[in-house]
Amino acid sequence: MLNRVRSAVAHLVSSGGAPPPRPKSPDLPNSASAPPAAPPQAPRSPPARAGSGSAAPARTVEARASFCRPTFLQLSPGGLRRADDHAGRAVQSPPDTGRRLPWSTGYAEVINSGKSRHNEDQACCEVVYVEGRRSVSGVPREPSRGQGLCFYYWGLFDGHAGGRAAEMASRLLHRHIREQLKDLVEILQDPSPPPLCLPSTPGAPGSSDSSHLVGPQSCWSSQKEVTHESLVVGAIENAFQFMDEQMARERRGHQVEGGCCALVVVYLLGKVYVANAGDSRAIIVRNGEIIPMSREFTPETERQRLQMLGFLKPELLGGEFTHLEFPRRVQPKELGQRMLYRDQNMTGWAYKKIELEDLRFPLVCGEGKKARMMATIGVTRGLGDHNLRVCSSTLPIKPFLSSFPEVRVYDLTQYEHCPDDVLVLGTDGLWDVTSDCEVAATVDRVLSAYEPNDPSRYTALAQALVLGARGTPRDRGWRLPNNKLGSGDDISVFVIPLGGPGSYS
Amino acid sequence: MLNRVRSAVAHLVSSGGAPPPRPKSPDLPNSASAPPAAPPQAPRSPPARAGSGSAAPARTVEARASFCRPTFLQLSPGGLRRADDHAGRAVQSPPDTGRRLPWSTGYAEVINSGKSRHNEDQACCEVVYVEGRRSVSGVPREPSRGQGLCFYYWGLFDGHAGGRAAEMASRLLHRHIREQLKDLVEILQDPSPPPLCLPSTPGAPGSSDSSHLVGPQSCWSSQKEVTHESLVVGAIENAFQFMDEQMARERRGHQVEGGCCALVVVYLLGKVYVANAGDSRAIIVRNGEIIPMSREFTPETERQRLQMLGFLKPELLGGEFTHLEFPRRVQPKELGQRMLYRDQNMTGWAYKKIELEDLRFPLVCGEGKKARMMATIGVTRGLGDHNLRVCSSTLPIKPFLSSFPEVRVYDLTQYEHCPDDVLVLGTDGLWDVTSDCEVAATVDRVLSAYEPNDPSRYTALAQALVLGARGTPRDRGWRLPNNKLGSGDDISVFVIPLGGPGSYS
Repeated sequence: MLNRVRSAVAHLVSSGGAPPPRPKSPDLPNSASAPPAAPPQAPRSPPARAGSGSAAPARTVEARASFCRPTFLQLSPGGLRRADDHAGRAVQSPPDTGRRLPWSTGYAEVINSGKSRHNEDQACCEVVYVEGRRSVSGVPREPSRGQGLCFYYWGLFDGHAGGRAAEMASRLLHRHIREQLKDLVEILQDPSPPPLCLPSTPGAPGSSDSSHLVGPQSCWSSQKEVTHESLVVGAIENAFQFMDEQMARERRGHQVEGGCCALVVVYLLGKVYVANAGDSRAIIVRNGEIIPMSREFTPETERQRLQMLGFLKPELLGGEFTHLEFPRRVQPKELGQRMLYRDQNMTGWAYKKIELEDLRFPLVCGEGKKARMMATIGVTRGLGDHNLRVCSSTLPIKPFLSSFPEVRVYDLTQYEHCPDDVLVLGTDGLWDVTSDCEVAATVDRVLSAYEPNDPSRYTALAQALVLGARGTPRDRGWRLPNNKLGSGDDISVFVIPLGGPGSYS
Repeated sequence: MLNRVRSAVAHLVSSGGAPPPRPKSPDLPNSASAPPAAPPQAPRSPPARAGSGSAAPARTVEARASFCRPTFLQLSPGGLRRADDHAGRAVQSPPDTGRRLPWSTGYAEVINSGKSRHNEDQACCEVVYVEGRRSVSGVPREPSRGQGLCFYYWGLFDGHAGGRAAEMASRLLHRHIREQLKDLVEILQDPSPPPLCLPSTPGAPGSSDSSHLVGPQSCWSSQKEVTHESLVVGAIENAFQFMDEQMARERRGHQVEGGCCALVVVYLLGKVYVANAGDSRAIIVRNGEIIPMSREFTPETERQRLQMLGFLKPELLGGEFTHLEFPRRVQPKELGQRMLYRDQNMTGWAYKKIELEDLRFPLVCGEGKKARMMATIGVTRGLGDHNLRVCSSTLPIKPFLSSFPEVRVYDLTQYEHCPDDVLVLGTDGLWDVTSDCEVAATVDRVLSAYEPNDPSRYTALAQALVLGARGTPRDRGWRLPNNKLGSGDDISVFVIPLGGPGSYS
């Protein structure tokens, strides 16, 4: 994530303060000390499994801490060195000889051109089995309902100010999602609407009626219908939150530094859930049509949320910042003059008389890739960053960052997908230099050169997208065919075919 | 606005508290005591003028205070009685004999079926001339730049808990907009980008450079470009704010009670600005295509804003409400059980263990037209409501209401409009029973029955829309042809032809 955090590494302070409370956090293992969980039971129709961190011994975790790539790349020590080479910037993909990723997913990545020592992007692709935590209804589970659920999972994590947060998220976020889904296994497999209220203890009947689930029919006439889909959305949202809280706990042991954007796809019971917190992007290309599946969260797109927070909690601005936005920095000699501004409620601009406190630095400033919050960070949602402070100050930035993703849902059963329909995930290294339309054109060009049933076509497509964003070394830089600069950032791309689970695996 | 405020009238408390500060409010006349401003100078190409309150003497204002209709309806005392008749619900339109509204705008309205004594909707249609307040640049105005600007203005105001706020807004909001635009007259007529900074005093040069305007070229390289369009948006946004502050000042003299939604259209320099605060709606029907020009602000659509405010400022909840949302009211006997909830960050739902404070009433509850904030109000943006309190409590509701509109801009010059292209504005009385598609079908049906150059066709269309939403008296109610209930609410509709100013006037 190029320049996203201005000199952030230099200003990372190992805070001695107390970690935030975590009343609801699930009982996940400490990422550094506890061994990862045993591999899950095989799903009912087990596709090829390839994990980024499923069964690594503690020693490997230590080694990774300095530099690691997704395990599904199956890199040898020599391969790892080549992947870490800023001069060559070789594109990395899973080997053609091994087992394919689920759904024949394509993947490619390349390291940055020198902005950071290692590639700070991480990726994960897993099939995750969720065993119900218990019979949530309080009565013994019926055998016909099955024992668990299986979800497919893809994650891209774009780190900044160090790679640890991205590495940790790539190892653990899907396990937080699994944890959140455990309570829902039985409910999601029951076609009736989710119960609004559950008994507190397994086996204890609900207090408000005699049936085992307090269903809608027994409640007030005025009640909302909650869908199964919205329960999965809630589970993913809370999993992001718990992942972030785990990072907060572990920052004190220096296990986590910096932060990361997280773009995650969960496929469960016929629906694709795309959750995004940061400035990565997901689009579906379906029959040539582009369907945006995420939006970016930056100081520009989240300006009003940030300003509102600064307005309602001025103590978070520490007397150093103003929540008002100005089109440029106000200068002391302009006191008393009138300058354009906008506040947390406005989308337009108006003039105001410059007062003393307007001379503070604006909470939000700059445009496009140069937009910054508190003059420091260019992305306003993600995981980690608990130690991030304002440049030359002790003012914490984290209160303004949100770890909640926006989740969009795509029902895979509502459309007959063909082998050329794909979901493309990319970190900002791709999207900084490639438009949605250019991606769609590459999808068409590359896939049409392969047989529809050739499973290697999606990796070829991912490689083409990464190469197209990286460019070739020429004129003292990495350049695109139009001679513009290619992306000097880390670039990572998943290409997920939407033909359906198992179709191409 | 049917049932929008549950028993709000009964709980209106005449507050003895101090009015909020108003540091920036322009010097507008007191609405009750000062005579309205003299009619503005004629615009450069003056169309027919018809004002809702341009030159009424103080005595008329008094009479209006009990019941008034837009002056452009030119109602006689007998006509006023008929317009106020709940049994007949006669549709009202400007007379065919008088001068037409600007652009041959069509208008129709009908009173409610008995939910309030009078029609609490109000409307205004004006041509407003804006004279520059002064030479903002500090140098004498160049004669070639012209002396002022003219904007066309349409406003619909849907009152609740009394009609005074809507009546006041219909008389004054366009004057607040004029006030805000006065500083911009010269800037908007200058094709160069707006100056970011202006001198404090007319005649005094800007301190940061020697030219009369501190233009972008003289500033830092990192500065935002602010468009003329965004200045107009900012002017409209602030005008809403000042209108609301004026209502706050005058509530103590009982000049203003209740509140109102405001849907306003400003046409200025080739662009249409649609500003909405409330649950009225505007759509453009262009060559049969529907272009939404507003969205509604209700406890459902603004749930996360309201919850975030309650979360950050819990004192506003007074210990009576919880910022969490539950799908139904939590019952004391459910303490310790787990119920679905969502907080200010979530769009999905999850289970949480019920604690004591979850037994408080949720800040936001209900669905659709039954959605309520603080169990009281069904609309979350608008003007007024400064005295509104929670039912059986002294807890003020106003802190959660926003007076800021969302402004959408439509460039009239980007498309060759035909006489059948219209902008339709309606209060919720129309939209509660009529979909966008049904409106578009009525546009097609009615306009095709008239010659394209017949200026009465837009009034006929407005009448058809109002009649279609009201229905006819049958089976103890007002019913639509499909036998469903028609709208029992006040219904008001503007139909604005987009053929261009003057084309049909």
